[in-house]
Formats: sequence, C-alpha cells, structure tokens
Amino acid sequence: MAEKSTKSENVAKLAPRPVVTRLSLYLRQLEILQTAGETCVSSNKIAKILQLSDAQVRKDLAFFGQFGHPGIGYKIDDLQASIRKALGTDKLWPLAIVGFGNLGRALMRYREFDRHGFHIAAVFDSDPRKIGSSANDLEIHPLARLGEICKKQGISIAALTVPAEVAQDVAIEITNSGIRGILNFAPIVLRVPEAVSVVSVDLSVQLEQLVYKVSHGVGNQPGR
Amino acid sequence: MAEKSTKSENVAKLAPRPVVTRLSLYLRQLEILQTAGETCVSSNKIAKILQLSDAQVRKDLAFFGQFGHPGIGYKIDDLQASIRKALGTDKLWPLAIVGFGNLGRALMRYREFDRHGFHIAAVFDSDPRKIGSSANDLEIHPLARLGEICKKQGISIAALTVPAEVAQDVAIEITNSGIRGILNFAPIVLRVPEAVSVVSVDLSVQLEQLVYKVSHGVGNQPGR
Repeated sequence: MAEKSTKSENVAKLAPRPVVTRLSLYLRQLEILQTAGETCVSSNKIAKILQLSDAQVRKDLAFFGQFGHPGIGYKIDDLQASIRKALGTDKLWPLAIVGFGNLGRALMRYREFDRHGFHIAAVFDSDPRKIGSSANDLEIHPLARLGEICKKQGISIAALTVPAEVAQDVAIEITNSGIRGILNFAPIVLRVPEAVSVVSVDLSVQLEQLVYKVSHGVGNQPGR
Repeated sequence: MAEKSTKSENVAKLAPRPVVTRLSLYLRQLEILQTAGETCVSSNKIAKILQLSDAQVRKDLAFFGQFGHPGIGYKIDDLQASIRKALGTDKLWPLAIVGFGNLGRALMRYREFDRHGFHIAAVFDSDPRKIGSSANDLEIHPLARLGEICKKQGISIAALTVPAEVAQDVAIEITNSGIRGILNFAPIVLRVPEAVSVVSVDLSVQLEQLVYKVSHGVGNQPGR
C-alpha cells in the first residue's frame, strides 16, 4: 500500500471492514441469545452459530477491548454495549429517506431500523403529487427543503432511494445539505465530496454472491 | 480453523468471501470503463478507482487465472468474461420473487438485474387479493405453486421479500420446492438445509457500516 503516511496512520486506527461487518453479525446474534434469556456467552458459542473460528471471534472482540472472562465468557449486556459503542450506534441516528417510491415505502416499514439505533425522521421526494402527503405520520417534503429540515432535526445520514438516472444529482444536493453519510440504493458509483461516507446496497452484487455460492455448492455457511 | 479435513479442502478451493465481493466491484467498474469506450485497463487504474492497492487487484484477478499483459494490462472483454465465469453469471439465472409487497415491487423494477445475468421469471404471494393479478407481464402465483413453477421454469434462486414473521416458514417452503439459493431480505437468521445457500441483505447492518464510517470520519473510501 503506497499511500501517504498520514492517510495510512489514519486508516490503521480503524478496524478492517470485514471486522466491522462481523461486529454487526455478533450484535444480531447477541440480541437473539438475549431474547432467549441468556446473559453470558462464550466466543466458542458465537463462533459455532456464525460458523467462524473461535480464535477469529476472540480476535475481533479484542480489537474493541472486549476480553471474555475465563469460565464465564462474555456478559451479553456488556458486549452489546461495547459493540454499539464501537459501531457508533450507542446513540440514536435520525435518518432521512430521499425518494418515496416502492423502495422508500419499503424502508419506512422496515421495523428493524428502530431496533438498531436508527429512526426515520424525514422523507423527501421531488414529485409534486407526493409532496405534502403523509406516510407513517411523516409529511413528505420537497427536496429543496432537505438542508433546512436535516439541519433542524440533526439528521446527518440519508438513504438514497431515487431512480438511477437522477441519483448522482440528488446525491450532490444531499451532500450540499450537510448530510455526512449516504446509504445508496442506486446501482451507480456515487461521486461525492471526500468527507462524505457512502455505503452502497447493490442488489446485483448480493445476487452474484449468492450465485457464486450456489454454483460452487457452498450451501449455508453464514461465515463465508 | 479446526474443521474436518474434507470440509477444509472443499472450502480451500473457494475464493475467500471478500475476494468474491471485490470481483463484483471489478465487474461494475469494467462495465463503466467499457461504456466509456475503453478496451484495456491496468490493475493500477482499477486499483485507483476502487481505492485498493495495485498488488491486491493483481492478486485477486490471478486467483481466477487472469494475468495482465505487460504494457497493455487486461483486455476488458476477456476480464469481464473471466470474472462472470468465476462468479457463475456467464449464464442467465431466472429468479423468483417471493412476496409481492413494496420491496417485491421495488425489486421488479430494479433494471440492474437484467444487465447482470438475472431475470425475474416468476412472482409469488400468499395474499388472495394479489394472486392472479399481473406485474411487469408476470402473473402473481400462490405460494403453493412454487415448486411446480420453479421446476418448470428452471428457477433455482429466489428473493425472499415476505414479512419477518413468516419468513422462516416461507423459507422452508422455498427450500422444499427445490430452490438452492435464497436472497433473504427478512431481518432474521434463516434456518435452511445445509445444501441451500443464503445471502442476507440486512439493511441495519449496512446502516451500521455507514454510521461506523461517519463516526470515524472515514469519508468516501469505497475500498473499505
């Protein structure tokens, strides 16, 4: 990696992306165990459920300062709190939905967001027929009010669910409005200012991963 | 990794999951370059666009037998064909949509599937008010006909877009019908037979990844 040393150092402090992805998986699993009435869990148990190695789980959790207690394992409460803190979801993140089509509608009904530290706080669209109407008690606002409303409501992340043709233009409007992170559903590589984070949900990529598994007979190995 | 040797051997032949994910990203990037009129590309150029290291890109592609030509780089046509073959998308995959709610509707309008080797071939729902009606020239069939229709149409993968409460039960119906891969949109860990592959699209996980990037000031680094 021939990068400027300042950048390398900055990146070095961050967990590698696969570790961050696994943190989310650990969190989901801990929620399931907690719902089942468990209070403690061993790295070995987590590893078995997620089909990872015990060593991998311990290493990932140690990255965030969590070390199991001998003979007890991890306290589920503590571990959840620690992972949420590492991810940044120990506080509630208000979220804007930009684009109230089928996908925007589906997201608004996606109850999991609320359970995981996210709260849909505002909805935007450019269609005059939709603007002013309501969905889930939220008024649909015109795109032009994005900056004003996000600032007022402290919204710093947005799901971009507009058609692909307009996604780049709307992404620029979004970043101009002060949003710092975009969950992008449009199947394009968004060009945004460097300070803005983008995570793209590319469903073709997910299907390609599925087809790879099906073609290679991987079967149901969640760790892969 | 203490696994049975047969399993280890089987897994060893497979590319590591992050490599497979990057293959999809390379493919998208090659499509963009091709649309722009390019015929050849260097690993260095791909690396720069996706913010990976040159060595990483060359290593990933060498895993699938692709080695650049000195002074020319990779021929985009060849590289695309080679990646599609590695992924299994060098043939067309008919796909079933199971659950015709907002998300199912959004998927049916997702034109990217057709561009990447996927074709929505059948739609299923359990709601008698939806069954028999049409969407995008496809009749909505009852769940009970899943096995029959998927067999007749050679469908082996399905997108599961039903509500979370019924997702596990419907997943079992899906696997009983001969489907070998499920793209799961329900926010639960599906329990399916070992031979069935599952890729879960967990939007909370994606948002957590976004919030991690926003919280840590990662900004727009697509390679992470």
